[in-house]
Amino acid sequence: MVYQQTFQHQTLGRGTANITRRAEEILEKSGIKTGMLNIFVHHTSASLILCENADPSVRADLEYFMEKITPDGDPGYRHRDEGPDDMSAHVRTVLTNSSLTIPFNNHQLLLGTWQGIYLWEHRTHPHSRKITVTVYGE
Amino acid sequence: MVYQQTFQHQTLGRGTANITRRAEEILEKSGIKTGMLNIFVHHTSASLILCENADPSVRADLEYFMEKITPDGDPGYRHRDEGPDDMSAHVRTVLTNSSLTIPFNNHQLLLGTWQGIYLWEHRTHPHSRKITVTVYGE
Amino acid sequence: MVYQQTFQHQTLGRGTANITRRAEEILEKSGIKTGMLNIFVHHTSASLILCENADPSVRADLEYFMEKITPDGDPGYRHRDEGPDDMSAHVRTVLTNSSLTIPFNNHQLLLGTWQGIYLWEHRTHPHSRKITVTVYGE
Repeated sequence: MVYQQTFQHQTLGRGTANITRRAEEILEKSGIKTGMLNIFVHHTSASLILCENADPSVRADLEYFMEKITPDGDPGYRHRDEGPDDMSAHVRTVLTNSSLTIPFNNHQLLLGTWQGIYLWEHRTHPHSRKITVTVYGE
Repeated sequence: MVYQQTFQHQTLGRGTANITRRAEEILEKSGIKTGMLNIFVHHTSASLILCENADPSVRADLEYFMEKITPDGDPGYRHRDEGPDDMSAHVRTVLTNSSLTIPFNNHQLLLGTWQGIYLWEHRTHPHSRKITVTVYGE
Repeated sequence: MVYQQTFQHQTLGRGTANITRRAEEILEKSGIKTGMLNIFVHHTSASLILCENADPSVRADLEYFMEKITPDGDPGYRHRDEGPDDMSAHVRTVLTNSSLTIPFNNHQLLLGTWQGIYLWEHRTHPHSRKITVTVYGE
């Protein structure tokens, strides 16, 4: 069995949003008991991560890390059509994930206690991001 | 239903090659309508990314970024059996993907407008790279 | 068909452990012939990589690389509840994989000759890590 649903998420500019509940709702609607859930983001300047879900400073520190290794406006970047955050957003996307696959059982995602699914917007301005969740199993 | 096909891609040395059309052809041949397509590269010094497909300078900037954080010939690397690009190729592979999973519907990959599937050769010399595409769904 | 099994792996502190054989054993038990195998680690400070499996200095060099770009005790990190390796372990997890999907055929994982599946412990102290393998196919 395969169940698929696409939704939009409005971001607030650079930063992370916990979308675990959205994925769980789609899993519940699918009625599928055991298998894999895939989340896919249809963009090249926003990405997905599984990250610690308790202390918000973890996500702040991830921003600090990315700014250290791929700062906005790096003079070595030639692709800057949409501003100083354009190329660094592509790099941050390539270093993380466009697609995450997570197992489930008894209609429940098998996430660890501290694992949350986060959409990571890498552009400084807000964007509407398209996400597809595909559930497959039996 | 599962459909699987393996092919070889001859690279030209370090750089990216758009293999989206190869994946789409295998999806069409599978006859499967809705599900997930997985692409897997059988090597530890070449990888897969979903990347902006319009401006070639994006991929040039990705090379610049990788050279900055993991330069060829880094004196800290001990593994250099096959030359100065040996270990940096392994690092670049680990930082990107050996495996990508992409949803499809109505026999079409659900890629965003600007998303292309790229094989990224990290060795400076040309190589023949083995890639397996697995399509599963209904 | 879907087959799922969870196991614990006791790590020895920071470093990599080859878990390819564990994944292969679960694939054999599943009896499924062709499809995809997913490995998932339920933690945010340990991760999975596909890595060169012949020369141990490759994994030592990967540690060197990570220490260079995200050193323990980086004064820019605010999240340090569990010590100087706490936040760098989260960064290393985000840069690698919590989930790997690998194709198989004739009951055999289609890994390249030099590809091994490694659990990468990013904390300096030993931990018991929970891993779920899901096999799906026909």
